[in-house]
Amino acid sequence: MVLFNLLLLATAAIAPAAASVWPLPKEQSLGTQVAWLDSRVKFNVKYGPPGDSSTYKYARDTLTSRVTRRKTSKKGIAETRIDAAIDRTKSFLYGDKLIPWMFNKKGSDWQPRYDRKTAIKIKTISVTQTDAEPDNTKDEPIDESYTLTIKAINDREAKVEIVGKTSTGVLHGLTSLSQLFYTDESKKNVYTPYLPVDIKDSPRFPHRGINLDVARSFYPVKNIKSLLDTLSWNKMNILHIHITESQSWPLEIPSMPDLAAKGAYTKDQIYSVRDIADIYSYASLRGIRVIMEIDMPGHTASIAYSRPELIANFNRQPWVGFCAQPPCGQLKLDSRAVDKFVEDLYSDLLPRLKASGAGYFHAGGDEYNTNSAQFDETVGTNASSVVIPKLNRFVNKVHKEIFDAGFTPIAWEEMLLEFPLTLDPRVIIQAWIDNESVKKVVDKGHRVIFGNYKNWYLDCGFGFWLDVTPQSFNQLAPAFTDYCSPMKNWKAIYYYDALEGIPKDKLHLVLGGEVHMWSEQVDGQILDARVWPRASAAGEVLWSWNREESGEYRTQLSVTPRLALMRERMVARGVQASLVTQGWCLQNPGDCQY
Amino acid sequence: MVLFNLLLLATAAIAPAAASVWPLPKEQSLGTQVAWLDSRVKFNVKYGPPGDSSTYKYARDTLTSRVTRRKTSKKGIAETRIDAAIDRTKSFLYGDKLIPWMFNKKGSDWQPRYDRKTAIKIKTISVTQTDAEPDNTKDEPIDESYTLTIKAINDREAKVEIVGKTSTGVLHGLTSLSQLFYTDESKKNVYTPYLPVDIKDSPRFPHRGINLDVARSFYPVKNIKSLLDTLSWNKMNILHIHITESQSWPLEIPSMPDLAAKGAYTKDQIYSVRDIADIYSYASLRGIRVIMEIDMPGHTASIAYSRPELIANFNRQPWVGFCAQPPCGQLKLDSRAVDKFVEDLYSDLLPRLKASGAGYFHAGGDEYNTNSAQFDETVGTNASSVVIPKLNRFVNKVHKEIFDAGFTPIAWEEMLLEFPLTLDPRVIIQAWIDNESVKKVVDKGHRVIFGNYKNWYLDCGFGFWLDVTPQSFNQLAPAFTDYCSPMKNWKAIYYYDALEGIPKDKLHLVLGGEVHMWSEQVDGQILDARVWPRASAAGEVLWSWNREESGEYRTQLSVTPRLALMRERMVARGVQASLVTQGWCLQNPGDCQY
Repeated sequence: MVLFNLLLLATAAIAPAAASVWPLPKEQSLGTQVAWLDSRVKFNVKYGPPGDSSTYKYARDTLTSRVTRRKTSKKGIAETRIDAAIDRTKSFLYGDKLIPWMFNKKGSDWQPRYDRKTAIKIKTISVTQTDAEPDNTKDEPIDESYTLTIKAINDREAKVEIVGKTSTGVLHGLTSLSQLFYTDESKKNVYTPYLPVDIKDSPRFPHRGINLDVARSFYPVKNIKSLLDTLSWNKMNILHIHITESQSWPLEIPSMPDLAAKGAYTKDQIYSVRDIADIYSYASLRGIRVIMEIDMPGHTASIAYSRPELIANFNRQPWVGFCAQPPCGQLKLDSRAVDKFVEDLYSDLLPRLKASGAGYFHAGGDEYNTNSAQFDETVGTNASSVVIPKLNRFVNKVHKEIFDAGFTPIAWEEMLLEFPLTLDPRVIIQAWIDNESVKKVVDKGHRVIFGNYKNWYLDCGFGFWLDVTPQSFNQLAPAFTDYCSPMKNWKAIYYYDALEGIPKDKLHLVLGGEVHMWSEQVDGQILDARVWPRASAAGEVLWSWNREESGEYRTQLSVTPRLALMRERMVARGVQASLVTQGWCLQNPGDCQY
Repeated sequence: MVLFNLLLLATAAIAPAAASVWPLPKEQSLGTQVAWLDSRVKFNVKYGPPGDSSTYKYARDTLTSRVTRRKTSKKGIAETRIDAAIDRTKSFLYGDKLIPWMFNKKGSDWQPRYDRKTAIKIKTISVTQTDAEPDNTKDEPIDESYTLTIKAINDREAKVEIVGKTSTGVLHGLTSLSQLFYTDESKKNVYTPYLPVDIKDSPRFPHRGINLDVARSFYPVKNIKSLLDTLSWNKMNILHIHITESQSWPLEIPSMPDLAAKGAYTKDQIYSVRDIADIYSYASLRGIRVIMEIDMPGHTASIAYSRPELIANFNRQPWVGFCAQPPCGQLKLDSRAVDKFVEDLYSDLLPRLKASGAGYFHAGGDEYNTNSAQFDETVGTNASSVVIPKLNRFVNKVHKEIFDAGFTPIAWEEMLLEFPLTLDPRVIIQAWIDNESVKKVVDKGHRVIFGNYKNWYLDCGFGFWLDVTPQSFNQLAPAFTDYCSPMKNWKAIYYYDALEGIPKDKLHLVLGGEVHMWSEQVDGQILDARVWPRASAAGEVLWSWNREESGEYRTQLSVTPRLALMRERMVARGVQASLVTQGWCLQNPGDCQY
């Protein structure tokens, strides 16, 4: 297998200077011959062997992304998923209309011209799933590998073949395929300039995600679906949805209707049972797992709007020292009423998530404030000797309920590292503070998800949002930076060595990572611009890692144009991603170095 | 006149906790009584006295913002402008559909209920221009003052009156009016909760603008029109359009077609003669002056794509030390060919801009690189004794041509302060480095525009965009910050004391300021999110200043909710502005302080 060579390609007469597939495939060989997509390309599909008896509650999405509930579907998950992905792929192939002018030298003759008489045409795309579909809800890695080839079969016709063991692999193959095509100046003819194409691909990490906080600011379902679309194009497979917070409780729990009725910002800012099923279904069709988080015992003040008796230290003012940000408020630690609340909550919610195909549930556990525990009458002190055993009881009870409902729980790192508690070794730990945390977690034998605030917090660097009082003005002015400034641009995200110091025999415990989109200063209006293409940078790190086989970091000169091309691809599909760099620097690779 | 009192209002039963008009009017008294907008409100308009003989080439815009060329228009500028503004105002009053839930305590009964039997109705809005329209193209301040009152005339009806001396004043009055209304939960009924309203308003500075770089990245005309709309809502009256750069020349010059044909990124990324007239006309209808900048002698490398003989040191590599960023290239300083080029350029362009109603033209003049002058054979050295006289000749010739065409030239501060050159005292200087620059300019007796990179550069803080070589990687990683990091959030922009150290007898020379949107990492996809509401913060500083009459800065507690409300107003009108803070902090004013 000849690995793709950027410099070689740049010398070709007709071909964008940037390789096309993002994230970079494990092995990719691209040529420089042009083939044109027939206006009625046919997909020949072979699904996996029979035996997939799982039923699927929602019909496959249409191009308008609607999901219609059906009582039963005759198709299994794999078939439904592949069919929907083919529909999407068609719409991208013909609809992207991407003209990659900025990746070619100004004035150069880089665009191929369609000539009906001599054009090599792609008339069929073969899509094959070879194996039986695995159970996507189990806490086991899924084979996501695929191969993609485009080869001329004679001097007038080329053929595309995509093969994956699972439907997820097939989906990734289709995603890569859709990134290999451009539109010519007429905006009618679709071509790939890369023949012959030979890609063998599989991910470095099984867990490649984003954590979206939908409770400090509410995001309409359409924003979440758009995010799921874009995640899938970046081969990211996890949407961690941080769905409740101290600021609001936007989640409908039918057996406790006042939780959202009183805890949500408004009645229009609640995720209904139907919305949640819709989100999980939409994600599953794109090969994405949704992991819902109901953070506790901290970050729960919004419960007090309906159940003040469950919350200690609600909106204490001044708040500094009693919580990470206002409003303070956390579940009482040793309360039968709180225990009952959690049991009722989970017994309403978890079976529904299970029915939607979920396998993981995030139990929260960050930033529990011991000082606030003094004002929790079921604790009454900030002494570790009292707080830790009570926290240990509470958290382990919560985790047990999650296990009992058929899920693997995920917990924030403080539960294992800060207090520390004794957790079930199957609990997955999400680290967010630094690389040292990741190392400590694997040293304790737990699996870990990385993505710390110094590199992978997408909310950082947008300035101090708390109202600065006249008293503290001089200290904070004039820059008004936040605790995790500066803003993490794509380079800070890409060149983050999350495996620093992890011994080889513990590497298997590192499941992958998540970028974090906390919503103090973000809502749906600007989600695209904040997330993309920075999350794409994380997507490549998680899929293909950020180093060459030599161990050296990939050079920026090799990453910038590919990321910029992926940005243009996302823009072509309606995502308002931020700009990587101005056109001149892309037209003149190497001339914008420092 | 009782000044508006935020705390008083917050205690009212039915009224958003945030005052409504942004930027804060000079004098504003708002009550707490509700009045409902009749579904067919009538505008009674009195235009200024006859005598306005100016013709107007373009018909007034419709709600779809189209501008249609007419051979002549029977209306004068003032009449055309006021009629168009009334059309816009109607669409905002009925179309904003803004429900200000987040500015009211969760669960409180803050929404008025429409009762046909008792409602006070607003059926007529009187709009009066009292004086003859001044010549907007002259280098003289225009009276922008207005008054706005809404008063009950009996127990069933209220009346709106807006009075301005000029059409610009009337436009500002209508802008304020449109910010005083909300929609109730039915989304059908429009109300203002502020009766009686009494506003007497006028701006602190005559020059309130933004500088948009449309040459590093190209912005379609629709983006520029959207920006003009949003500027007008913030009572900003200047669009400085930095229209050419070293990266591209997107400006059609009919007598030199190859300038854009070869210098623009693509043929679709060129502002045609028609586009420019359209932009100036669209701006004028909104009370905004467009100031076009053709930067020179630096920042002109893109001229080399059509006229390589005019440019010294084109795209020198390595570039560090020879220009501020790649590609290097500046007009030769002492060349008859360059002189002729500028004469031809101006004689094509300036009369057209004059016909579009322009009075100012920006001659550029930043970052002329003396080291590059060594490689300009018409200079041949970097010795000041040679460079400065040649630069002096060139710049003064350019400025004279601008004066001769009937414009007042604007120049970047380096021309006056760095070299320094001897400039015509009528030249307006744009300072961008620091407060000291502003002081030095007025000390030399020139008028000045402020807005330095430490506070008012909207592009800062988004990270290092140049490709970092492996050699410089360790030095720049991991934060990859840019030269002017951190990002300037709205607080850094708002609490910027641009008048620091300016003596009282020189204050009249400070015309105002501009925020700057340089486009290394921005294009039309994310313009809204980068500019708004941060430019709104500048808008209030420029209209109402950032201090109370006592000399103290306005508190953040008084600014945050008003800015957040303005953000929601902009979002309601389709602008994807960034979020000021999450809803909880707005619902609970004072509880998110630090």
